[in-house]
Amino acid sequence: MRAASLFLALLASACGRATTPGPALRCAAPLSSALSVQDRAAVEAVLTAQAAAWNRGDLEGYMQGYARSDALVFTSGSKVRTGFDETLASYRKKYGSDRSSMGSLTFTLQRVDPVGASGAVVLGRWDLQLASGPAGGVFSVVLERRAEGWRIIHDHTSADPVASAP
Amino acid sequence: MRAASLFLALLASACGRATTPGPALRCAAPLSSALSVQDRAAVEAVLTAQAAAWNRGDLEGYMQGYARSDALVFTSGSKVRTGFDETLASYRKKYGSDRSSMGSLTFTLQRVDPVGASGAVVLGRWDLQLASGPAGGVFSVVLERRAEGWRIIHDHTSADPVASAP
Repeated sequence: MRAASLFLALLASACGRATTPGPALRCAAPLSSALSVQDRAAVEAVLTAQAAAWNRGDLEGYMQGYARSDALVFTSGSKVRTGFDETLASYRKKYGSDRSSMGSLTFTLQRVDPVGASGAVVLGRWDLQLASGPAGGVFSVVLERRAEGWRIIHDHTSADPVASAP
Repeated sequence: MRAASLFLALLASACGRATTPGPALRCAAPLSSALSVQDRAAVEAVLTAQAAAWNRGDLEGYMQGYARSDALVFTSGSKVRTGFDETLASYRKKYGSDRSSMGSLTFTLQRVDPVGASGAVVLGRWDLQLASGPAGGVFSVVLERRAEGWRIIHDHTSADPVASAP
């Protein structure tokens, strides 16, 4: 499970350009320069749109970031979901499909790196505020430039380890 | 942390060809057909060589599967390592660099999918037998076809969730 806020995605985008980013940008590592400015922006826009959709309770809109393909892979917590439909069903079962059950999602992009000539991989953090409390972790999403635009074809999402008792 | 045995990699390779794989093959999903036979074999060979190196206690050999790049990303358990040198240091700290401390590693490849024209992403399971007991989980590795051959540029490794008390 992941998310992006417009604000943080814009900050992450700024990371790629700023020479002396302020601490608030949290540019965890130098971003690769081998993706064109346009491709980087398009990749980031996919995640930004996903987060915006999530935060208005629009699960179908969120799913638009994924390739509508039976080859889509989503893995989290050692479970593997294969295909767009199974991924959507898994999200719906876990988070419902309205704003109250989906909570509030924030994305912090850490890296956007090229994969060959027409792929990209994004490393980031997801933080979700649910009525039951916060959750978060690290995600890696692999995107491919397809006829319909950049789409996620592989998503590996991890949750933070459970904190040990103090 | 991941691994490949020659045997299992060959089985995974067979998954791409067999029409009625037996249960032992554990072909979790149809493999994509968009990578050429040569590219798929080269990608699988990277992982096979890594596992073979690991199982003879050759950490440097294992690391040859990774791009020797400052942009390499390795993430596991919400920790992020960036760059070849940091990744190697992290492995060395956790597993030492000889056979007795590195244990025995097995790889089960589940999918090898293309990423654009010159990338690939592999989903698999890793299982490690250490003196302290077994460990395992799911990994996603993103590879890029580079001048020196296919190399891993991004590794997201998860450990199985800790089993809850019965």
